[in-house]
Amino acid sequence: MAQVALIGIGDELCIGTVVNTNAAWLAQRCTELGFWPVRHVVVGDRTEEILEELRRLWERVELIITTGGLGPTHDDVTVAALAEFLGSPLHEHPTVRKWLEETSQQRGQHLSERALRQALLPEAALPLRNPVGYAPGIWVERDGKALLALPGVPAEMRAIVDMSAIEHLRAFRERLGGRILRFHTLVTAGIAEARLADLIGEPTALLPDGVELAFLPSFWGVRLRLSVSARSAAEGEHLLAEARQRLLQRIGPYVIGEGETSLAQAVGELLRQRKETLAVAESCTGGLLGASLTDIPGSSDYFLGGHIVYSNAAKVALLGVPDELLQRVGAVSAEVAEVLAANVRRAFGATYGIGITGIAGPGGGTPSKPVGTVWIGLATPETVQAQRFHFGAERTSNRQRAVAAALTWLYRLLKGLPEL
Amino acid sequence: MAQVALIGIGDELCIGTVVNTNAAWLAQRCTELGFWPVRHVVVGDRTEEILEELRRLWERVELIITTGGLGPTHDDVTVAALAEFLGSPLHEHPTVRKWLEETSQQRGQHLSERALRQALLPEAALPLRNPVGYAPGIWVERDGKALLALPGVPAEMRAIVDMSAIEHLRAFRERLGGRILRFHTLVTAGIAEARLADLIGEPTALLPDGVELAFLPSFWGVRLRLSVSARSAAEGEHLLAEARQRLLQRIGPYVIGEGETSLAQAVGELLRQRKETLAVAESCTGGLLGASLTDIPGSSDYFLGGHIVYSNAAKVALLGVPDELLQRVGAVSAEVAEVLAANVRRAFGATYGIGITGIAGPGGGTPSKPVGTVWIGLATPETVQAQRFHFGAERTSNRQRAVAAALTWLYRLLKGLPEL
Repeated sequence: MAQVALIGIGDELCIGTVVNTNAAWLAQRCTELGFWPVRHVVVGDRTEEILEELRRLWERVELIITTGGLGPTHDDVTVAALAEFLGSPLHEHPTVRKWLEETSQQRGQHLSERALRQALLPEAALPLRNPVGYAPGIWVERDGKALLALPGVPAEMRAIVDMSAIEHLRAFRERLGGRILRFHTLVTAGIAEARLADLIGEPTALLPDGVELAFLPSFWGVRLRLSVSARSAAEGEHLLAEARQRLLQRIGPYVIGEGETSLAQAVGELLRQRKETLAVAESCTGGLLGASLTDIPGSSDYFLGGHIVYSNAAKVALLGVPDELLQRVGAVSAEVAEVLAANVRRAFGATYGIGITGIAGPGGGTPSKPVGTVWIGLATPETVQAQRFHFGAERTSNRQRAVAAALTWLYRLLKGLPEL
Repeated sequence: MAQVALIGIGDELCIGTVVNTNAAWLAQRCTELGFWPVRHVVVGDRTEEILEELRRLWERVELIITTGGLGPTHDDVTVAALAEFLGSPLHEHPTVRKWLEETSQQRGQHLSERALRQALLPEAALPLRNPVGYAPGIWVERDGKALLALPGVPAEMRAIVDMSAIEHLRAFRERLGGRILRFHTLVTAGIAEARLADLIGEPTALLPDGVELAFLPSFWGVRLRLSVSARSAAEGEHLLAEARQRLLQRIGPYVIGEGETSLAQAVGELLRQRKETLAVAESCTGGLLGASLTDIPGSSDYFLGGHIVYSNAAKVALLGVPDELLQRVGAVSAEVAEVLAANVRRAFGATYGIGITGIAGPGGGTPSKPVGTVWIGLATPETVQAQRFHFGAERTSNRQRAVAAALTWLYRLLKGLPEL
């Protein structure tokens, strides 16, 4: 099978001030494309250590991908290391110089001599345009192997992969031939990993021979990844289709989408189909639900907007929460969640309104309302309801879980599924 | 200097379904303890590949830490690999058997034959109790080097380090003697990496001998990490203080904080000191600015809330943007950004109001307003202004950069610095 090794370059990765999320993202993309990741390595900004890893891994794998060290400062040494590794001297690529000039013009930024150094690449390199920054990616094929160098800033790395490197990776993978891997993912929401495992039973008993199942839990839900190694794409697709059918028979009602679908996307798709709209009122999540919904291109079709009512005064003044109610039951209560949902629905003229109020932590907890207590209200044209959730002790995850819970609730309502 | 290499073991890490957060956490702990991390490696659950990495890294470093593969299932192969690497056969450690029995009793769980296998460790191993799970950690010293094996579940890994491994690491580090590392980070915003490098000039000419400088860029700004290897903590701190002074003379106005400070935190801290407040009106960012501000504990002291006015109708109905203005200049314009900022400031009774309106993409661009065009309005008690920004082609990064730009602007205004 075609193998890939990932090399993350940078002192900040090595000493742990930055988590190497690039490796996981690239490993997933690579497995989807039919490369099996056998090694991730992180090294500091030292030419000789980068060279050592390039040389040893080049002997073992078909593809090496590096991230980091392509920028213009003194600690960006990847390009020099690549030039030495490839035995291909640096020279200025006129296309890259043009890209740098275009980007600086678009941004109204001065292009210094230093920044122009990013046009110096090994002669053997095919530069890949960076659509969200300056430093270009680099693609090189040699002796039936390939090397891809990417910037370390995650958004730049991802943009180069998705907009140009992916074509080279695909074509290279096809030329390699051999057994291929195929994947299919079912995305669930609103069900715990252990309960899902109970419903599915022993995977080997349920699934066709050779198909494997992995549980990938997150705050948003559990993704179920089916994988198979096959002699052809057709054989792989056939086995996965059969496996998918059998899985859906067991857990269909919890599946909100397939592939890369997110919960916010699944909800948005349903709203779009139904020509319905949504507005949100957020207290403890402070805009995170709106941000999740609007992260989806085209969300203006169904998402009208919302109120971030972080202070009690804002809840009263902007969403008509009665002051008396706040005094009597507190901001984190079923009553306030319902008023938020109903009033934001009305204010925006939306089909549905969601209200979220809770104690994200670390402060603000009480014995009767500990940190992690969140009330979510959901208003429809017919009803207004509220549900209480108890999450954990950690602020960031409490906010994410509140958003996930609200979206799961709306998803199940739109699908006519029973409440959880 | 004492060097450490980290080996993460597990197919789920290798294929990227789990991000290797353990490595960053351990790398930070190691640098605090005086070990310089020179390599992170991830390998799958294959004995021969684990052995290969153990053997090559043992030649290079003083300390190896492995995570993962210590559990009881068929794919946990780390213990067998360690036994072979150490030439130390597996035998049952009675202390570990006792720990396993105690843990199962405390939890009211049945202790299967399979689970009891976790008491089988290399004879040479010193077992370290796992206070939050079953699989123990393993400590081995040999020939002036040390090896620490930890479970892969982050909470178990951390608990073993902090409750017992840390004493062994400290004592081992002391026996090694030699130089130690010290760090200090300056956080900048509103200046590109290349421009910062120009202002700083050649780091070796500016900084005291032995102090190194690393540039850590992100959308929020560039963090500058100073590091030094010194004979004592006092010497290290002295050199860093001197280096910090010299850096501040060159780039002081761009430094928004030190250490772990984020841009949202720096803005919040200034608002808190001045007893001032902020409200936001978000179109293309859809709540992301509010979410960034409220990610900071205690942000209710200065952040009142906001409006997510994703649709034009919401801009008109909720924030009083004149319909005529939308028709004449469009939603993405200086005029609308200013009205959003001024009216949200007034609606919340805040000291400052920020309005963001732009084209995040991928759709919606025109020749005169391409994707990535964002207008930001900032209203103060005295004035209302708007600035135009041109970001890139990618939706997610455009949204993040708009939030960063808005916070940078407010930060510089609060500090009395000139506009960028």
